[in-house]
Amino acid sequence: MRFGVNYTPSSGWFYTWLKPDWDSIRRDLDAIKGLGVDHVRLFPLWPVLQPNRTWINEDGLADVRHMAMLASERELDVYSDVLQGHLSSFDFVPSWLVSWHEGSMFTDDNAVAAEAKLVSALYDALADIPHFKGLNIGNECNQFADATHPRRMAADEHGVQAWLEALMAPVHQKAHANGHVLMHSENDAIWYEDGHPFTSRQACNIGDISIIHSWVFNGTAQHYGPLSAQSLRHAEYLAELSKAFADDPGRQVWLQEIGAPQNVIDEADTPEFCRKTVEHVLDCENLYGITWWCSHDVNRGMKDFPVFEHDLGLFDEQGELKPIGKAFAGLARQYRDMPEPAARRQAIVVKVGQDGNAVLKSACAPGGSVFERWMEMSEAGQRPALVSSAQAVDRDFCKARGIEECIEVPMTPGLQYNAVSDPSLESKKQ
Amino acid sequence: MRFGVNYTPSSGWFYTWLKPDWDSIRRDLDAIKGLGVDHVRLFPLWPVLQPNRTWINEDGLADVRHMAMLASERELDVYSDVLQGHLSSFDFVPSWLVSWHEGSMFTDDNAVAAEAKLVSALYDALADIPHFKGLNIGNECNQFADATHPRRMAADEHGVQAWLEALMAPVHQKAHANGHVLMHSENDAIWYEDGHPFTSRQACNIGDISIIHSWVFNGTAQHYGPLSAQSLRHAEYLAELSKAFADDPGRQVWLQEIGAPQNVIDEADTPEFCRKTVEHVLDCENLYGITWWCSHDVNRGMKDFPVFEHDLGLFDEQGELKPIGKAFAGLARQYRDMPEPAARRQAIVVKVGQDGNAVLKSACAPGGSVFERWMEMSEAGQRPALVSSAQAVDRDFCKARGIEECIEVPMTPGLQYNAVSDPSLESKKQ
Repeated sequence: MRFGVNYTPSSGWFYTWLKPDWDSIRRDLDAIKGLGVDHVRLFPLWPVLQPNRTWINEDGLADVRHMAMLASERELDVYSDVLQGHLSSFDFVPSWLVSWHEGSMFTDDNAVAAEAKLVSALYDALADIPHFKGLNIGNECNQFADATHPRRMAADEHGVQAWLEALMAPVHQKAHANGHVLMHSENDAIWYEDGHPFTSRQACNIGDISIIHSWVFNGTAQHYGPLSAQSLRHAEYLAELSKAFADDPGRQVWLQEIGAPQNVIDEADTPEFCRKTVEHVLDCENLYGITWWCSHDVNRGMKDFPVFEHDLGLFDEQGELKPIGKAFAGLARQYRDMPEPAARRQAIVVKVGQDGNAVLKSACAPGGSVFERWMEMSEAGQRPALVSSAQAVDRDFCKARGIEECIEVPMTPGLQYNAVSDPSLESKKQ
Repeated sequence: MRFGVNYTPSSGWFYTWLKPDWDSIRRDLDAIKGLGVDHVRLFPLWPVLQPNRTWINEDGLADVRHMAMLASERELDVYSDVLQGHLSSFDFVPSWLVSWHEGSMFTDDNAVAAEAKLVSALYDALADIPHFKGLNIGNECNQFADATHPRRMAADEHGVQAWLEALMAPVHQKAHANGHVLMHSENDAIWYEDGHPFTSRQACNIGDISIIHSWVFNGTAQHYGPLSAQSLRHAEYLAELSKAFADDPGRQVWLQEIGAPQNVIDEADTPEFCRKTVEHVLDCENLYGITWWCSHDVNRGMKDFPVFEHDLGLFDEQGELKPIGKAFAGLARQYRDMPEPAARRQAIVVKVGQDGNAVLKSACAPGGSVFERWMEMSEAGQRPALVSSAQAVDRDFCKARGIEECIEVPMTPGLQYNAVSDPSLESKKQ
């Protein structure tokens, strides 16, 4: 099993890309290596890499390459995002897509073509690095298309589909020839939010791996409690839920972001939250990896972050390993060689429409009928899987997944949930 | 008389701040020095200098310092802007003021305090450079408060006044002790646009110099013709108009931006436009300097600029001096030691309210009664000044300016004018 961290540079956060502090970055990567994890996920800033629509900053690409090399030299596998985009409540969008040049990164042809070039350029900059493993199109780009976004970029489901395909197309062949993976990542609106233009089907069928980001500040911890089964199994649930929308019965799923946000979890409980969450999700088949958010606490001298962002690190501001860091390091040691878990025999059915997406996504959300039933069965020790109503009647598919019994549930919606990372921003979500 | 250029780096435009190409910058400054001009105006990028509200990028400050040193070593005087802000149709606003963090740079207390710190930090970074002469708060920041701005930042006249004072206060004393000037600059909406929260009084009484930016794509060239008296005297008119709102009868005015935009002027006419414009404005008393926009053409490989931005340079993309560059260099040689022109004896009266601002700014705009009368008298060889109706009845003030006759005009509004640099964006202005 892969264990890794989302790398948040200790000196200057992601602003370090403006002039990377390589000494500090080397120390950070040494410390990450010392955890016993095997990979890092990197986050370039889009306006640094592509300040003009038709002018890619080669020095910026070289800096990402250098950071990736430093990780690779430490035998850390390296995944890099491309379009950031969104990070910890801040949006970084180049000047050619905002204000007088405001447009949609998803559907403006010129913008999409430019982004595809950047994907290609970053891929080429990293491709020959020994431990480079793959590219992620961007961090939760779906947030820009969310109805609640203050500067929403227009896109419908077809536009998103075309966008995802356009961005992967230029590197698809060579990435696969080189054994690299390509993926895209979204927040849990793709699983829970009705009417969102990014769909569960896209998450599970475009790119090489399904990506899940599990954040219990989405209402789960608030409603059920931070150490409730619902919180501790949230990541496990998402991993299983993703499989209900994947055509490939063996599709892998990567828990690419999981963290212990202290706006909803007491600091003293975070090691336990980490341990239980990881152990639960390790009971899912076809898990690609677990990547903690994040490596280093954000410096408290930097303002306007959601307050809990300053506490999400495995290392604190002084570079000291925190109790949760020890817990995660211990889990990596304990489970890195674990065997694949057994198949899940029982599956709850998610009713889907002709497009293969849930007819009512909010039934899958915390408090929804699918979520509730899955949690009840899990707590009863039954290890439920999830399948779509289309998969449930496909005998070969069920067989391939090892599913022997499908359990129908009504589709009733869940709680109002919050996909955005800053509770103080919730008022903007109405 | 001071002659200088707004420095637009030939390699990478202002994106060069992401990783300055010092060899190219040295060559650019050598070329600028070779024009025989005496100063440059520099434009840092705000998101590079202050990516977080409470974290100033010291490396970014060091880069501005280094560029200023390179200019100073060539005995070019150096002025630097602080908040960019707005450049050639692109807005560069840090992530802590946009999207989920959208706010007003003018009236959010935390934002204003942060900006004041940046002004102070940049001042301290430049203060001891031999040829450093002063700071400009930002390039046409008033655009962000314009009703036509797609992401308008809230501010009323009092808020703007407080903002300007707050940003100058931290460095006011030491700048003056060091013989440096402090200023702020706006586009011509402050002279022409009724109801704009930035006022003519602020332009002429806050900071050490009144700043004018003269752009004949504002409707003047379109309506009267590019080589009409109205176009060729536009800068001269603005210089005189500024004096109608200054309490100090000896207040200096700086033609800080003047350019020959080829969306309205034929390329072949640009040297003539340059020559006549400069010669007209040199007939204004208390002129601080003339700074051409800009040094170098913007690379055509970079897209989404208003098309004429690629042709505004005195040097072309290959670094060759253009005919307009030769014209400007010749004017600098010819007029650098010219004596102060005589006082203007006749003044057209701009009717002002109790606040000292025009009761109808649009009467001062192209096509307005004040503008038209001033142009008629100028073409008749009468060298008219402009005074406010409050100044006109102040005998001491008129005497100090040498004004002997005041001429009343009705206040009737001018044409629809366009303060924004991209004609294709006009549709957004309704």
